[in-house]
Amino acid sequence: MAGPTLRDVARRANVSIRTVSNVVNGYAPVSDELRARVQVVLDELGYRPNLIARNLRQGRTGMIALVVPELDVPYFAELAREVITAARVHGYVVMVDQTDGDADHERALLGRDSRATMFDGLLLSPLTITAEELRQRGNRVPIVLLGEHIFNGSFHHVAIDNVAAAHDATAHLLDLGRRRVAAIGDQPYATGETAQLRTIGYRRAHARRGLPVDEELVVPTANFHRRLGAAAMDRLLALPEPPDAVFCYNDLLALGALRALTRAGVRVPDDVAVVGVDGVEEGQYSTPSLTTVAPDKAEIARAAVGTLLSAIDGTATSAAEIVIPHRLIVRESTAGEV
Amino acid sequence: MAGPTLRDVARRANVSIRTVSNVVNGYAPVSDELRARVQVVLDELGYRPNLIARNLRQGRTGMIALVVPELDVPYFAELAREVITAARVHGYVVMVDQTDGDADHERALLGRDSRATMFDGLLLSPLTITAEELRQRGNRVPIVLLGEHIFNGSFHHVAIDNVAAAHDATAHLLDLGRRRVAAIGDQPYATGETAQLRTIGYRRAHARRGLPVDEELVVPTANFHRRLGAAAMDRLLALPEPPDAVFCYNDLLALGALRALTRAGVRVPDDVAVVGVDGVEEGQYSTPSLTTVAPDKAEIARAAVGTLLSAIDGTATSAAEIVIPHRLIVRESTAGEV
Repeated sequence: MAGPTLRDVARRANVSIRTVSNVVNGYAPVSDELRARVQVVLDELGYRPNLIARNLRQGRTGMIALVVPELDVPYFAELAREVITAARVHGYVVMVDQTDGDADHERALLGRDSRATMFDGLLLSPLTITAEELRQRGNRVPIVLLGEHIFNGSFHHVAIDNVAAAHDATAHLLDLGRRRVAAIGDQPYATGETAQLRTIGYRRAHARRGLPVDEELVVPTANFHRRLGAAAMDRLLALPEPPDAVFCYNDLLALGALRALTRAGVRVPDDVAVVGVDGVEEGQYSTPSLTTVAPDKAEIARAAVGTLLSAIDGTATSAAEIVIPHRLIVRESTAGEV
Repeated sequence: MAGPTLRDVARRANVSIRTVSNVVNGYAPVSDELRARVQVVLDELGYRPNLIARNLRQGRTGMIALVVPELDVPYFAELAREVITAARVHGYVVMVDQTDGDADHERALLGRDSRATMFDGLLLSPLTITAEELRQRGNRVPIVLLGEHIFNGSFHHVAIDNVAAAHDATAHLLDLGRRRVAAIGDQPYATGETAQLRTIGYRRAHARRGLPVDEELVVPTANFHRRLGAAAMDRLLALPEPPDAVFCYNDLLALGALRALTRAGVRVPDDVAVVGVDGVEEGQYSTPSLTTVAPDKAEIARAAVGTLLSAIDGTATSAAEIVIPHRLIVRESTAGEV
């Protein structure tokens, strides 16, 4: 059902198309009498004079899209808020798209006639797209990539140093004197590499202290949700020699692990200390509150939006590789203090 | 910076505009030689052949917008997932817009040239827009309203029965024998009425049992976030006669209250029982786990998307008023059982 056209309105109002266009677009003044006559017909026909047409002329929509795997993962929800705030400063509106890490959904952004072309630019946190697919994409919508994924510097990219973040979390546990530090969240076969980088950081913290990693303590999970954190923790607690600390690859896994520990009557941090990654608000309110390695989400957002707007303006030429700081926030789950 | 036009491409490739259009839009076959020549220029100029133009012709975008106050409020993030799932069944993509309850941001959706016109329809969870503003809106993009707000049945509307939900939560506490049941989250002066309806339900549960409400126990909060839940709980604990139970108007307030209780060394549910509303996943993993009144979010999403698509097709005529079921989920924060 295509909407009525300017021509339809003009015919019905018995005026010229130019007059209708002037009423709709405001290019030239129109007498009150004519304006009223046109307005009645616009309303009758439900004409939707539209941004689509205007943007076609201007080549801009004033909107950017933030594309993330899962909005109900608090890290992405909190990042979305920061991106929306950062974009608003520049007069841009952000619409958020959830891919569920689905390959088809992600690839649909790359096509020539993709809905991506509705936007002036994309901030994309990819899970499955390869660098090759990105390079060969059919549209020219500017893209800034967020988070970890192998892209060899061919695209604008904003992320934290995941190896260092994982190292810092693990080092914190080892420096507390823990000697059986487990890792929950490895994804040895995933396309994305966040998990793999975090495993490297976990191993590096051990190696630097001349400590061995007990491979039994490295537990892979299919995703980074609370439920799998709890399941992995249950599995670790069932070992003949359970861990005395756990580095979880994100806060949701850690919050699931905390729940499993509480349910099993294990004291945190006395018996098992727990660290997550992401710095989500939920970890401030959990019992015990959660020690975490927190990326500077506001800075990720500012850098990503700034880079994208430069790319839209054509002022960003070579691919920007921006590394955002993170910091360890020590709370009850490792420190025993409020 | 308007993008290159078909004319620019045609001139540079030394072919007719029709040929370029045929390459871009596929209306008619083009020889391989011509196609290649045009493609080179399309690439050189960074032409973005686009959905915008196509949608202008078809009057459809295949996209609907979900407009919510805050994405980092888990209820909305979880609802977004359900809406995305429900829309996908119908081949629709959902983009999510966060308003922060900002009046200007909400009103911008109502204008004649609003970005709302980029979408085939809107699912809108309004905080400040009035029924009058909605009625007089300048565009004709179909809208379905979500959640509570006074609209007098003039618009498609999907919500739970908030009075009943609050009644059920409060009744659960009273039926456990609690006699000083506090309420956290009243908003007597808010434009939206979710909080006001929940206060009515809280009072009704008392009235039906012939029990008085101690007004000192009804604590207003400016928003529904964890921090204010904790602050309100601290205030209640400082009363000469603290409550023995708390009904929080959403789960985030309740999770904040739980944290304040734990910090104060108050036993839950032994000394104070706690109930929230929303059924967010976080409440399954908190310690203690959270009793909650959970709306059927998947059903809200299905009903909202179905109604919106009918409105887009023009098959939904009179305003639909759809009430979605909710249920009480009893967990440790009231039952003392895992």
